[in-house]
Amino acid sequence: MIGHREFILKNKSLVSIDQLDRASLEVILSLAKSFKQQPNHRVLNNKIIATAFFEPSTRTRLSFETAVLRLSGQIIGFTDSRSTSSAKGESLEDTIRMLAGYADCIVVRHPEENSALRASKVSKVPIINAGDGSGEHPTQTLLDLFSILETQGRIDHLVIALTGDLKHGRTVHSLAKALRHYKIKLILMAHPGLEMPESIIQTCRSAGLDIEIRSQWDLSGGIDILYMTRYQKERWSGSLLDIAPFILTRTDFEKFNTKKTLKVMHPLPRVGEIDLSVDDAPQAYYFQQAENGLFVRQALLSLMLSDFKI
Amino acid sequence: MIGHREFILKNKSLVSIDQLDRASLEVILSLAKSFKQQPNHRVLNNKIIATAFFEPSTRTRLSFETAVLRLSGQIIGFTDSRSTSSAKGESLEDTIRMLAGYADCIVVRHPEENSALRASKVSKVPIINAGDGSGEHPTQTLLDLFSILETQGRIDHLVIALTGDLKHGRTVHSLAKALRHYKIKLILMAHPGLEMPESIIQTCRSAGLDIEIRSQWDLSGGIDILYMTRYQKERWSGSLLDIAPFILTRTDFEKFNTKKTLKVMHPLPRVGEIDLSVDDAPQAYYFQQAENGLFVRQALLSLMLSDFKI
Amino acid sequence: MIGHREFILKNKSLVSIDQLDRASLEVILSLAKSFKQQPNHRVLNNKIIATAFFEPSTRTRLSFETAVLRLSGQIIGFTDSRSTSSAKGESLEDTIRMLAGYADCIVVRHPEENSALRASKVSKVPIINAGDGSGEHPTQTLLDLFSILETQGRIDHLVIALTGDLKHGRTVHSLAKALRHYKIKLILMAHPGLEMPESIIQTCRSAGLDIEIRSQWDLSGGIDILYMTRYQKERWSGSLLDIAPFILTRTDFEKFNTKKTLKVMHPLPRVGEIDLSVDDAPQAYYFQQAENGLFVRQALLSLMLSDFKI
Repeated sequence: MIGHREFILKNKSLVSIDQLDRASLEVILSLAKSFKQQPNHRVLNNKIIATAFFEPSTRTRLSFETAVLRLSGQIIGFTDSRSTSSAKGESLEDTIRMLAGYADCIVVRHPEENSALRASKVSKVPIINAGDGSGEHPTQTLLDLFSILETQGRIDHLVIALTGDLKHGRTVHSLAKALRHYKIKLILMAHPGLEMPESIIQTCRSAGLDIEIRSQWDLSGGIDILYMTRYQKERWSGSLLDIAPFILTRTDFEKFNTKKTLKVMHPLPRVGEIDLSVDDAPQAYYFQQAENGLFVRQALLSLMLSDFKI
Repeated sequence: MIGHREFILKNKSLVSIDQLDRASLEVILSLAKSFKQQPNHRVLNNKIIATAFFEPSTRTRLSFETAVLRLSGQIIGFTDSRSTSSAKGESLEDTIRMLAGYADCIVVRHPEENSALRASKVSKVPIINAGDGSGEHPTQTLLDLFSILETQGRIDHLVIALTGDLKHGRTVHSLAKALRHYKIKLILMAHPGLEMPESIIQTCRSAGLDIEIRSQWDLSGGIDILYMTRYQKERWSGSLLDIAPFILTRTDFEKFNTKKTLKVMHPLPRVGEIDLSVDDAPQAYYFQQAENGLFVRQALLSLMLSDFKI
Repeated sequence: MIGHREFILKNKSLVSIDQLDRASLEVILSLAKSFKQQPNHRVLNNKIIATAFFEPSTRTRLSFETAVLRLSGQIIGFTDSRSTSSAKGESLEDTIRMLAGYADCIVVRHPEENSALRASKVSKVPIINAGDGSGEHPTQTLLDLFSILETQGRIDHLVIALTGDLKHGRTVHSLAKALRHYKIKLILMAHPGLEMPESIIQTCRSAGLDIEIRSQWDLSGGIDILYMTRYQKERWSGSLLDIAPFILTRTDFEKFNTKKTLKVMHPLPRVGEIDLSVDDAPQAYYFQQAENGLFVRQALLSLMLSDFKI
């Protein structure tokens, strides 16, 4: 693909995972694989990337910054809005215009939905959405897809179970939308009150996905990927007691006779929904998953900002 | 000029705009122009610059850091004093001595007047004042002068109006003092209670500047540069209603029949004194002005810390 | 030594000063000396070091970061835990696992004792303890030893007085333990209630150190090194009046007829225990001492992470 046509987001902003069709996703995942094998390249030489984190997110910020450094780029930025002119009343748009005068690309994390889109409208350099409130977090989806591919060798024809807070979880919303490009079975397993929004279910069904809804903790059915998410105390008022049955323990694998090749994924941080006993199990993949964020971000930055060829 | 005699601040500290005579200003502005055309040089190779921000100022900090990176220098620092030993009771002087042991130059932002001077007295490496409370902010003045020159092709013989909070605004104080080296007409336009201090007016008049005082919003009189400033809620207890007539709107240009070449400048952040409708007008120059900060800071760092020749 | 056998911590973690025997200490101090003469090397080229500061410590952080930059390494990190997932409830272990996926070495500062050890147990890359609460701070001890050696030309056969808060001071605990490898006389001088813990005194005595306890301010006895520490208001409820006799003033040198070559050291920040009048005295060495931190950290990073040969 690369070398034959221009990458769809070359010198453009990535605001939503919806901007990427299956062909574009595959270009990114393929390039990420080559960065995993050989991480250091000089494709961002003389380029400055701004990490504009209006709310803290260490994992995402450091993953982007490591990706930039391994590509020989350089970094300016801030880690939360207390240290910015936002505290003096400056608008998001004015802050972005300022950064666009200094940097060649701006990675934006902001607590408000649609903030990345707003940023992209006033910026003369590409924006990468690194999470906008309850909106999107497309590079998380890219690393999730890459991790699925890494562990199973393919994405098509898998059984993928999403569980945790499916109602408020930005991560699972974007992942479900991205998975509609593949031929998979999706199991949505949530405590009552935390179900996946109906609109997303419809989008996936319209695209031909086989969707099964479960309201109880049940790992049967040949699951290949168990994708868990955090219960966000800032978004959910329920008790941890309510979701206790939805906590993964090491005995679950035997109890439900899961596939030997099942892998557990989680966007992290976790706060109790995966028992520590799982960490040493061969099914645990969440730490490698986080590390994979580095390679998909290297791939994305290279494709957006340089003439990188595989 | 360069090549014939040493730059006046070579390996010295820049505490006040008063240290720079017209010849030195012109060397900086000329070198800034060449950095605007070709930003990347390696003159700070192997040099480490500390950004010591005892209070947050993202725009100034990132502008300095971008300047350093584009000159192949490297950065250490902090973004506010909560993360420093100041919180443990360490004096400014001791913190500066520590930084001078690590870095080749220290950019200091501090909430107290005269802090940059105090820093320069104990530092074995050059200090650059990046704003010391109600004191000075000389590199802001340099970028203001550069922006005037960029938009009008000259500084002499212009009509320059300063407006906003002329009483507390460090920016307009320093700019007025720097403009005394040029043959200009200065219009000082402020709401009663926010007038320019008499001492600065006298300094400028003594230097031969033609000064006109206006107490009402009036853009007539062949203004070339309209320089606006922010009403700082932390320094002024008046109501926004009082200064409502001093808010610039797009219709003002026609209403006062201003010059086609008039440019609006503002040190940013703005918090309402420029209506958003002005942003798209050809008169709006404040975002490019902020970007110009990069080039004058590159020029200053090069002249202070290297043997850079144009 | 180098070139003949592997450095004891090559690709391993430094958690406690107890891991270093006299031979290893001497390798580090010798290499630090060569970095003091020629600071820039490229031994960390293509390496990324994470500075994970769960509590602020600007001096230590910037010293490590400067060391990394002078060795051509690069830095990712955070300056305090408010900006991390710790605030979302993530465990230290999970944060470390994340960082180990991005960086080649992690410098950890954390308010809890044993946190560096816990970090080293889950990290696939080396950990350097940069202070773990009331536990250890081994690189501070290295710079203290290096400063003693720099000022006196040797460590053996010196008279070294430790004073200040000997009860809670992590710095003096580690220094005393490291000094047991040398043939010195140790004077422990503290206000009642702030004495050195008996266990550390026993450790030093068992190793053959000559130890003298003083409960009053007394600089007599041929002291070569006067090592002072800060009274930490967060750990000690006593009044500054109590410790007033333990404040060093410039007249003390004459009053106690101290050696001409006596040097005053302090880990900084100081908050009053050294009168400012001492700063200009030839005995004052605390600012140079802080700068020495750079060279021992360069030495340590080189020995741990590269095949550096002297």
